[in-house]
Amino acid sequence: MLVVQAASSLQLCRIMRPDDANIVGNVHGGTILKMIEEAGCIVGTRHCNTQDGDRCMAALVRVEKTEFLYPVFIGEVAHVTAEITYTSKHSLEVQVQVMSENILTGVKKLANKAALWYVPCSLKNVDKIMDVPPIKYASAEQEELGRKRYGAQKMERQETKARIEDVVPPPPNPGQHTVGFSQSSLIHLVGPSDCTIHNYVHGGVTMKLMDEVAGIVAARHCSTNIVTASVDAINFHRKIIKGCVVTVTGRLTFTSNKSMEIEVFVDASSLMEAGKEKYRAVSAFFTYISLDKANKALPVPPLKIDGEEEKRRFEEGNARYLQSKAKRLAEKERQE
Amino acid sequence: MLVVQAASSLQLCRIMRPDDANIVGNVHGGTILKMIEEAGCIVGTRHCNTQDGDRCMAALVRVEKTEFLYPVFIGEVAHVTAEITYTSKHSLEVQVQVMSENILTGVKKLANKAALWYVPCSLKNVDKIMDVPPIKYASAEQEELGRKRYGAQKMERQETKARIEDVVPPPPNPGQHTVGFSQSSLIHLVGPSDCTIHNYVHGGVTMKLMDEVAGIVAARHCSTNIVTASVDAINFHRKIIKGCVVTVTGRLTFTSNKSMEIEVFVDASSLMEAGKEKYRAVSAFFTYISLDKANKALPVPPLKIDGEEEKRRFEEGNARYLQSKAKRLAEKERQE
Amino acid sequence: MLVVQAASSLQLCRIMRPDDANIVGNVHGGTILKMIEEAGCIVGTRHCNTQDGDRCMAALVRVEKTEFLYPVFIGEVAHVTAEITYTSKHSLEVQVQVMSENILTGVKKLANKAALWYVPCSLKNVDKIMDVPPIKYASAEQEELGRKRYGAQKMERQETKARIEDVVPPPPNPGQHTVGFSQSSLIHLVGPSDCTIHNYVHGGVTMKLMDEVAGIVAARHCSTNIVTASVDAINFHRKIIKGCVVTVTGRLTFTSNKSMEIEVFVDASSLMEAGKEKYRAVSAFFTYISLDKANKALPVPPLKIDGEEEKRRFEEGNARYLQSKAKRLAEKERQE
Repeated sequence: MLVVQAASSLQLCRIMRPDDANIVGNVHGGTILKMIEEAGCIVGTRHCNTQDGDRCMAALVRVEKTEFLYPVFIGEVAHVTAEITYTSKHSLEVQVQVMSENILTGVKKLANKAALWYVPCSLKNVDKIMDVPPIKYASAEQEELGRKRYGAQKMERQETKARIEDVVPPPPNPGQHTVGFSQSSLIHLVGPSDCTIHNYVHGGVTMKLMDEVAGIVAARHCSTNIVTASVDAINFHRKIIKGCVVTVTGRLTFTSNKSMEIEVFVDASSLMEAGKEKYRAVSAFFTYISLDKANKALPVPPLKIDGEEEKRRFEEGNARYLQSKAKRLAEKERQE
Repeated sequence: MLVVQAASSLQLCRIMRPDDANIVGNVHGGTILKMIEEAGCIVGTRHCNTQDGDRCMAALVRVEKTEFLYPVFIGEVAHVTAEITYTSKHSLEVQVQVMSENILTGVKKLANKAALWYVPCSLKNVDKIMDVPPIKYASAEQEELGRKRYGAQKMERQETKARIEDVVPPPPNPGQHTVGFSQSSLIHLVGPSDCTIHNYVHGGVTMKLMDEVAGIVAARHCSTNIVTASVDAINFHRKIIKGCVVTVTGRLTFTSNKSMEIEVFVDASSLMEAGKEKYRAVSAFFTYISLDKANKALPVPPLKIDGEEEKRRFEEGNARYLQSKAKRLAEKERQE
Repeated sequence: MLVVQAASSLQLCRIMRPDDANIVGNVHGGTILKMIEEAGCIVGTRHCNTQDGDRCMAALVRVEKTEFLYPVFIGEVAHVTAEITYTSKHSLEVQVQVMSENILTGVKKLANKAALWYVPCSLKNVDKIMDVPPIKYASAEQEELGRKRYGAQKMERQETKARIEDVVPPPPNPGQHTVGFSQSSLIHLVGPSDCTIHNYVHGGVTMKLMDEVAGIVAARHCSTNIVTASVDAINFHRKIIKGCVVTVTGRLTFTSNKSMEIEVFVDASSLMEAGKEKYRAVSAFFTYISLDKANKALPVPPLKIDGEEEKRRFEEGNARYLQSKAKRLAEKERQE
C-alpha cells in the first residue's frame, strides 16, 4: 500500500508563554514533552487511518530516553518536526525534533530529539489493536536499523512491565537533603481538555505532570534554578480515562556531582468506582541539573541515604548514570 | 459502615504560575479558592461513592467565611490538605488548609483555612440527594462540635435563601429580540499569557474575546447553535498594555433572513493609573448565522428596532449586507 | 537586502480540544482568529528582525474582512499557513490560510482565509516604527496587486480612525470613588473545563470568577495593588449547567479605613432555552485590602455614598465589619 509523504510527517510550532516556563524564564521540560507527544499523536493517528477498517487513535506506549540539549526561553518559537520512521505490524515509531528559534536574533538551536512508539486502538473497541499500514523506506539499511530499534524496545517494555511498588509517605520532619525532605506528590482530576476524542488522557499531559513533580523535588533538594536534563525511557503500561484522579509522586533516587535523578510514579483511580483499585499507569526517571544565573551547571548537594531500600535505589541510579556517561563518551569518540 | 482513612482525606499541590497572579506577583484569592474546592470535591465525591447505590458527585452548597492569612507568590508551591470532618444524613463538611511553601528557601506559611459543605447528587438524576456514609470521630466531643457547626450553617442557609429570593430585585428584562435583550459585555484583566514579550496584548487574544462576546449576543438573540460566518475588517487603533482591564461590549445592529450583524467594542483602562482615561482600542462587525443539527442555516428572528439611533445602525448594517452580497455575486460570476 | 524564503512563511497546527468549541462541537471563530494572528505575528516579527538596528515586534494594526468557509470540529487538526505577501516602507501584509484536517477520515477543508497588516515597533521604544525589509515578488504584477491592497487599507484605516474618534460618545464617567465608578461585571460562557463530569459548573470555578470581578472593583476604587483579605460565607443556591452564560457583577458596599467590602452576584441563564428566566445562582461579600510595595496595608479612599439604597448597604456592611472585628478580638483574647 502506498502512503503519501505528506501523511507521515508533520510540523507544528508555538510561541513560548510565561506559563510555559519557570520564574527564571526557562521553559519546562514538560511543556516540550507535551508538544512532542501532540505531534506524534497527530502523525501516528493520521497514518493508521489511511486504510480501510475501524477508525483508530494512536495511543502512546513508550518514549525512548531523551535529552534536553539546550534550554528554551519565553518568547522563543518552538518548532516540532515529527516523522514516522518505522512500522511493525501493530506499532509505529515517530522520531521528533524540537528546534528553538529566537525570532528577534534569528538564532536557532536544537533543543530536543525524541523517539515515540504508538499502537493504533480502534475507536469502537479500545482494546482492539489495529494493523499499521507499512511505510516505504529510503533504503534497506534504514529498514534494518528500524527493525533493531523495534526489537530492543519490545524487549525492554516486557521487562519493565508495571513494577508496582508502594510509595511510602515521608516521615513528619525529615532532615534536609534526605529523600523524605524533597519527596512530593500532586493530584490532578482529569478534565476534558486532557483527553483525546476517545476519552483517554494524552500521553503528553501525563508527561507534563510528571515533569512538574520532578521539578518540585529537584528545587526542594537544591534550592536553585533547576532544569530537566534528560528523561529515561518511559513505558505507558495502562491507559488513564476521563474522570479519573491521578496521583503523581516523585522522589530522589540518586545524585552525582552535578545531577539529580528523580523517580516519578503515576497512579490512577476512578472517583466513582470505589471497588476498583488504584493502579500504576506510568513510572520513569527524570534527570535534573541545577543552574546559576549564567545558565552554567552548579554542584548539587549530595543525597543523604537512609536504610537498605534507599541504598539499593541509589546504587541502581549510579549504575544508570555511569552507563549513560559511557554511552555519551562512546558517541563522542565515534563522531570524532 | 467503616470508611478507610485514605478515603476521607487528601493532599494536593501545585506550583503557582504567572497566570495565577496579578502583575505584582500576588496569587489571586480566586486561584486559592478554586484549589480548595477541587480538593473538597475529590474527597467528598470519593467518600460518598464508598457505598452501594447510584454513583454520585459531591455538589458544593456552602463555603464558610474564610480569611486569607498570608499572601502567596508566583513560584511558590501551594499545598492543600482536605479532610472530611463531619457527616450528616445528606451532607458532609470538608475542612481545608492551604500552606504556601517557598521551595527555594524552605519557608512554609499558613495561607488559608476553609470549611466547605457538600451534598451528594446522583449521576442518574441530579435532583436526587444520596445518603452520606458516616465517618468515625476521634471523640464524642468532636462529633458534638461538628453537629453544632452543621446546625448553624443549616439555619443560615435557610435564612439567606429566603433573603435572596425576596429582597433581590430580578434583573431588568427588556423585550425579547430587542437590541437591549441580547446586548452583552465582559471585562477581562489582561494576564501575562495574553501578552507579547514587550508586554502588549496579542491582537489574537483581543479578537478571541470579541468573538466570545459576539457569540453570546447571537445565541441570546436566537437561542440556537450559532457560528461565526464572517468578520468585517478590524482596525487596531491603540495598543493595550499588560495590567489593563478591557471591557468588551457587543450589540446587534442588523438581522437579515439568515444572518445577524453584531458590533463589538473593546475599551481599555489602566487599573493602576487613576488619572488616565478609558480609551477605545478596537471595534468591529461580526456576522453570525444560526445552524440546525445538520449544520444548515436557520431563519433568524428579526431584530426589534427602537428609536432613531437603532434605526440608523440597522440601515447602515443593511447597506454593508447588500454590498457584501453584491461582491460575492460578482466574484461568483467572474469565476464561472 | 535578500530575505531567505524560510523567513517569510510559516506553518503551525494544533488539535482542536473541547475548550476550543461550543457544546455542539463547533470550534469558536475566536479560536481560529487567535491561531491566525499567532502565525502572522511570528512570521512578521521574524522578517522585520532580518536587518540591523533595534530588535522589534510586529504589532497587528488591521485584519481584512474574513469569512469562515467551513466549520471546524473538536478532534480535527487545524493547519495554519502564513506568508508575507507585501511590504511597504513601514508595514507588511501576511496572508493566512486555515485548513481543517479530519485525521480519521483524511478529509481536508479550507476553513478560513485572512489577510493581516503589521507594523514593526522597536522593543526599546514602542512608539518608534522600524523600517520593513523588502520581500522579493514572483512577478511585477504580484507587486502591483499588493500595492493596490496597501493603498486601499491605508485609506480605510484613516477613515475609521476619524469615525471612531468623532462619532462614538465617550463612556459615561461617574464620579471617582462612587459606587458606580468601580462597579464591574463580566459574562462567561461555561466551557467543558469548568464542569464536573455530570456537567455542572465546579463551585471553585464560580468562586474564581467572583474573586476576579471583586478584584477589579477594588483595584478601580483605589488604583493600587489589592489582595483578597477574606470572603464571607457563600451559599450555592442553585446549580449552573454546561452551556449557560453566567453574569458576575461586583459593587462596593462599604469601606473602612483599610478595607473594602464588595458584594458579588452570579446570575445564570441558558443560551439555548429562550423561555427560561435568568436566575440568581450565588451571591457573596468579598473583603479586599490595598498593599504598598512592602506588602503593608494602605489607607483606602472612603466610598462616596449616594441615595437611600447605598446608605442602607453601607450601614449593613459596617455592621458586618464591626461584628467580625469583635470576633477576631474575642478569639485573640481567648488564645492569650
